[in-house]
Amino acid sequence: MEALLIIDMQIGSFQTTRFEAEKVIENINFLSTFFRKTDKPVIFIQHDGTKENFLVYGKDEWCILPSLIQDSNDYYIEKEANDCFYKTRLESLLQKLDIQKLYICGCATDFCINATVHGALVRDYDITVIKDGHTTADRPTLKAEQIIDFHNWLWASLTPTKHAIEVKTTHEILTQ
Amino acid sequence: MEALLIIDMQIGSFQTTRFEAEKVIENINFLSTFFRKTDKPVIFIQHDGTKENFLVYGKDEWCILPSLIQDSNDYYIEKEANDCFYKTRLESLLQKLDIQKLYICGCATDFCINATVHGALVRDYDITVIKDGHTTADRPTLKAEQIIDFHNWLWASLTPTKHAIEVKTTHEILTQ
Repeated sequence: MEALLIIDMQIGSFQTTRFEAEKVIENINFLSTFFRKTDKPVIFIQHDGTKENFLVYGKDEWCILPSLIQDSNDYYIEKEANDCFYKTRLESLLQKLDIQKLYICGCATDFCINATVHGALVRDYDITVIKDGHTTADRPTLKAEQIIDFHNWLWASLTPTKHAIEVKTTHEILTQ
Repeated sequence: MEALLIIDMQIGSFQTTRFEAEKVIENINFLSTFFRKTDKPVIFIQHDGTKENFLVYGKDEWCILPSLIQDSNDYYIEKEANDCFYKTRLESLLQKLDIQKLYICGCATDFCINATVHGALVRDYDITVIKDGHTTADRPTLKAEQIIDFHNWLWASLTPTKHAIEVKTTHEILTQ
């Protein structure tokens, strides 16, 4: 069974300028609609940054972006680290739902997306990252677009564990 | 107790041009000598790429670079994935040696170093990455130097688990 992981698409995350945010939000809405129609789970991950006093649990900044489509059958998981598997209910939920394949999208490319890709890879999940479904901000030495392009190349080039990582566009997934 | 992890400093890894390879090798030799003098374990990780027909176990390309100082008390661990913790003896060795703090160096910044930093972070190790003790190659969209600078910033900026990651130069470690 397959699931869609939507990571940290929260109001506070987008108070920073994110590269092509509107396109990424639109793509995630296309994907989540597609998953729901085929009865595949959609899992929202929300960062609880209470310890860092940013994305504080329950505050507006912590809420999912209102422009993202949500459904009463969706799942919600809290995390406090970059890797969505670190001390969370994610792994037990995936086991309960009998998920072997993860489609990963969200924010930020170089932090929680990259950390979670590594966390999923060492757990032998079959991973597809949405090439145009994740975003980040400009960093001190690289532009957001450079970071996104680099990671899309990197993930597809990592040494496979049980599976090799695939990096596909939203269009490729919706038409596969 | 502290240990030095020296990752994938193998002959085959350096058949590709690596950024400032000689300086990185010299720095790793400074560090390993310092660790041995203070009776702290030095652990070499060797990638066994038999499945990919690159860095094949036992072949010359698989061997540690002859310019790296080795000692009969050093430890050696084989791995087959990017993350040194994936299906290896590393975690049990660290437990046996009562290691809580890891100093990480080697090759390549964006592959096995980054994957292992994430693997160590989610296991709550106290991590220091050697800022001038890891290297990589030019990639399709970024130069090696850009990748190294970016990761040195990234690791120090990741959300702490039990500890925050530190990124320090060889000089800072030898004089701390």
